[in-house]
Amino acid sequence: MTTPNPATVVGLGATEFSKNSGRSELRLALEAITAALSDAGLTPEDVDGFVTFDFDNNDPMAVARNLGVTSSTFFARSSLGGGSGCASLGLAKYAVETGKAKVVVCYRAMNERSEWRFGQPSRQAKGGLQTRLASTLYTDGSWFAPYGMATDASRIAPAARRYLHEYNATTDAFGQVAVNQRTYAQTNPKAYFFGRPMTIDDYHNSRMIADPLRLFDCCQESDGSIAFVVTTRDRARDLKQKPVQILATAQGMGSNPVGLASPYAETMTEAVETRIVGDQLWDATGLKPADMDVASLYDHFTCAVLIQLEALGFCGAGEAPELLSEGGLAIDGLIPTNTSGGQLSEAYIHGYEGIAELVRQMRGTAANQVPNAKFGVATGGSKIPTSGLVLAAD
Amino acid sequence: MTTPNPATVVGLGATEFSKNSGRSELRLALEAITAALSDAGLTPEDVDGFVTFDFDNNDPMAVARNLGVTSSTFFARSSLGGGSGCASLGLAKYAVETGKAKVVVCYRAMNERSEWRFGQPSRQAKGGLQTRLASTLYTDGSWFAPYGMATDASRIAPAARRYLHEYNATTDAFGQVAVNQRTYAQTNPKAYFFGRPMTIDDYHNSRMIADPLRLFDCCQESDGSIAFVVTTRDRARDLKQKPVQILATAQGMGSNPVGLASPYAETMTEAVETRIVGDQLWDATGLKPADMDVASLYDHFTCAVLIQLEALGFCGAGEAPELLSEGGLAIDGLIPTNTSGGQLSEAYIHGYEGIAELVRQMRGTAANQVPNAKFGVATGGSKIPTSGLVLAAD
Repeated sequence: MTTPNPATVVGLGATEFSKNSGRSELRLALEAITAALSDAGLTPEDVDGFVTFDFDNNDPMAVARNLGVTSSTFFARSSLGGGSGCASLGLAKYAVETGKAKVVVCYRAMNERSEWRFGQPSRQAKGGLQTRLASTLYTDGSWFAPYGMATDASRIAPAARRYLHEYNATTDAFGQVAVNQRTYAQTNPKAYFFGRPMTIDDYHNSRMIADPLRLFDCCQESDGSIAFVVTTRDRARDLKQKPVQILATAQGMGSNPVGLASPYAETMTEAVETRIVGDQLWDATGLKPADMDVASLYDHFTCAVLIQLEALGFCGAGEAPELLSEGGLAIDGLIPTNTSGGQLSEAYIHGYEGIAELVRQMRGTAANQVPNAKFGVATGGSKIPTSGLVLAAD
Repeated sequence: MTTPNPATVVGLGATEFSKNSGRSELRLALEAITAALSDAGLTPEDVDGFVTFDFDNNDPMAVARNLGVTSSTFFARSSLGGGSGCASLGLAKYAVETGKAKVVVCYRAMNERSEWRFGQPSRQAKGGLQTRLASTLYTDGSWFAPYGMATDASRIAPAARRYLHEYNATTDAFGQVAVNQRTYAQTNPKAYFFGRPMTIDDYHNSRMIADPLRLFDCCQESDGSIAFVVTTRDRARDLKQKPVQILATAQGMGSNPVGLASPYAETMTEAVETRIVGDQLWDATGLKPADMDVASLYDHFTCAVLIQLEALGFCGAGEAPELLSEGGLAIDGLIPTNTSGGQLSEAYIHGYEGIAELVRQMRGTAANQVPNAKFGVATGGSKIPTSGLVLAAD
């Protein structure tokens, strides 16, 4: 909070979100970055830094070359997978606040539906995450896949079931997350499920994927790209958009991590990594959950939203179902959450769509705007090494 | 230079260097990290941060789990390839100086000879860097490989030839780099070429790989791992080793980057990326080349050492051959360079062996110790996006 010239998000760009983009991931990245620079009132000549996810297939070298950037002084990758999003903005914040770079582009681009489906058991053998064929991420998977724990849904399902058992809850709580976000999507024309509303009955009637998780408990698989432009607040004064300050970012990894929902973790029901992140965010900003006007909580699965609300301190352990039943995630609720429709109903861009929505909320331009939103919190994947951030309106 | 509690390297660990380690890359990483922690007088319980290369196959998650680290707050990957080394310590520096983590482990582990040979044309199709099968790094290669530019040696050879032409030099200059480093290796028992001296005639008689580059112009292919432990200077006071301060780190990427020695770069003979790095290092530290007591210049190929000497300002453009002929890289020369034998004669651990040697020089424990060494500079790969750092003895 004492940084004299703090990092701000000054540009936001995205492609359309689809199931088949029809073009390369590199092209998607470049389209989103170009849009973000244009949004900021900057050109590629202004850029001297690049950050992307460890899982992204577009190396900063190819992105810089195709943008026409002639000299760069910062390039890095954040870890891990869907936990990389907020951390990537943290690396950009570091770069601009220490002068390592003046204007940093953060990007994530993927044909995650048309080329490499994360939801398929054989994804590691097919590409995309074949980018990790030789890595420990692949060998880790070999411990579970032979026993049927071959997708993220099947890996997190036992934790979802345990949550319901431990807190005497029903899948209505999960369904309320799904319906809440689908409702938001009905007023967001960019959302994939725009124009396709859903009732709680629709939710309960959707097909079972990994008991107790149904189709509408699972995030989408999407093609698309989102990019952010980060620079200092001083520089932001001359640019087109109202700057959005990155107050703090944090990362967290718990004990015995193995992919998603490690069976060796200390608890099945707590989002330990998110708690580690939240503790740092509140400590660094001096803010608390009640100060947040809006949240983007990583929604790979509906159940993940519940445990993150608890881990961040929006409610106590096991109290999220009650919060949901009271409409706590609606615009007029305790903490409006995933207001674009999120990964369940807008698009799955590995957490970047949630951060993008938070930027719009801080600008006051969201489709489902929270009136006078001043502070917002975003997270990456839960029950896996992750990250989070707090943004502030200028 | 104004950081109140700057980052220091307090631990250094390594496996043996071989052509066939006989064990997994993960095990190599863990052995090096465990050795580095022991060297520092720390245990895995003290660790809360991890940094590795974008190319490393050992995800921080697997490393943390196998070390038994129960809670971490920083994990990231530096880019790009052999340019990642110094940048990885830069990320660790950021983490400990801002309090994002207290003790960060930086590691690189690879069975680069026994499993995935970077020197083979088909490397991308076989593994290791098959970790990038789907990425732009692979598609980039498809522009050259069909024309025979299928290895890094073949890609940098035209630049090496152009250098000789432009500055009216002979391959004696390259050979002097190779012989100088082989000589250093004769007093370093850890070096792969320990006990196997080489004359300039041996160099000239070695087989041609990619004209004008001969076998002894090329770095080794090695199995092995090196790890560093980074924490603040205050914390270092309680630890076992004399701390080595990370004064500054920097990264650089030029125009039109495509793999190694981009044919579209602005010049064939200058190490543009290294110049971008050097300018930042001298600016950040207030030091100049003449203040350096020792250097570890990334020696994927002998010719790269020459152009880095020039890019960093140790001599003018085209003057490196004269510097070499005067014995300028020997212990009593202008700038003792790659004093462990380097990647040509000690081992190829993607630049980490050069940083390790610099740490030993700052501690005063190198096999070929520069008397009273106070400052040293290291770099990553040249003619590719890269990084550098300046270390200082305590």
